[in-house]
Amino acid sequence: MGEIPKIPKATARRLPLYYRYLVFLDDEGKEKISSTELAQAVQVDSASIRRDFSYFGALGKRGYGYDVKSLLKFFKKILNQDTLTNVALVGVGNMGHALLNYNFKRTNNIRISAAFDINPEITGTIMSGVPVYDVKEMKKQLRDQQIDIAILAVPQSTAQKTTDELVEAGIKGIMNFTPIRLSAPESVRIQNVDLATELQTLIYFLDAEKN
Amino acid sequence: MGEIPKIPKATARRLPLYYRYLVFLDDEGKEKISSTELAQAVQVDSASIRRDFSYFGALGKRGYGYDVKSLLKFFKKILNQDTLTNVALVGVGNMGHALLNYNFKRTNNIRISAAFDINPEITGTIMSGVPVYDVKEMKKQLRDQQIDIAILAVPQSTAQKTTDELVEAGIKGIMNFTPIRLSAPESVRIQNVDLATELQTLIYFLDAEKN
Repeated sequence: MGEIPKIPKATARRLPLYYRYLVFLDDEGKEKISSTELAQAVQVDSASIRRDFSYFGALGKRGYGYDVKSLLKFFKKILNQDTLTNVALVGVGNMGHALLNYNFKRTNNIRISAAFDINPEITGTIMSGVPVYDVKEMKKQLRDQQIDIAILAVPQSTAQKTTDELVEAGIKGIMNFTPIRLSAPESVRIQNVDLATELQTLIYFLDAEKN
Repeated sequence: MGEIPKIPKATARRLPLYYRYLVFLDDEGKEKISSTELAQAVQVDSASIRRDFSYFGALGKRGYGYDVKSLLKFFKKILNQDTLTNVALVGVGNMGHALLNYNFKRTNNIRISAAFDINPEITGTIMSGVPVYDVKEMKKQLRDQQIDIAILAVPQSTAQKTTDELVEAGIKGIMNFTPIRLSAPESVRIQNVDLATELQTLIYFLDAEKN
């Protein structure tokens, strides 16, 4: 951990923003970007970007800009420096089951430490090393275990209701695997993972190239 | 389908690019964007962007720019207009199993029509309505069924080898659920889905806001 420099909080706050845009650029096959272009894209002024990046040493070359892959690699490393974070999984259907077995700890210090479902056949059991509680216990368990991040993998029909309960329980971040856009207070950060749209985008792109 | 206007191929080719950037903006909570900003971000000149958007009617307002959510909704609709696309699933472990049961057809016209694995307990059977073939038959089946898109959900250790085989079989697009960045010819489009990094970004953002 000693290799990672101390950075101002404002800089830290902008890292995920840079990171996500760089992932976008990399997926699109872009190899470099100037601080001016980056500034436009993430809507942070380019002086701040250059200052932010300066904390990490000379990542860019004058007149060339920044190398997308190097930046990505660098940010990925920084983002992974945290201590172990316990998260909750809500909904242990097919996707939930896969997530229980997904190796979040491989490169990231994340562990699903509690799961919730309504199915009496699995509540009260331990699956893949993780206790599965009845959703009725969700608010209490989340508070007792001081978990503030949840992965939402419930059926679409109960997604909003479950979100409301998570918000009530004090959850601060939700990774949403359901296809609906959830409504929650601004203080709750929601990250959407829409697999169907991801796949559709890939298909559409190929069709466009074919014609 | 009649509502969707005929658009030039060059425009069609840029849609997924716009779409993905708009998803990024929306996730970051941005509500509007000008064609100049969009031009910088996706590296398409702003005149082309305005022309592209003009095919869909007046989506932007002079002096205001484009509304992110409206554009997103619009593009999502266009991207979903395709006819049924059959895709292959390679690797029927936990994630693969979840994907077999994931309802890609709900809003999207996508169907997993063939799955491949090495596990003799499941090859030769039908799971969730989809035949599971031995990977040895992959090249033949993909060609016979004229499938050119694959979802890769194999273990990390065999990801590159399997990719090579998919490329040999003539696959044109891969949705990559493994954490490694695959190497493939430029003609093969790869869409990465890195769940651990998605979750880590969410966590990092919350930590940054907390301090």
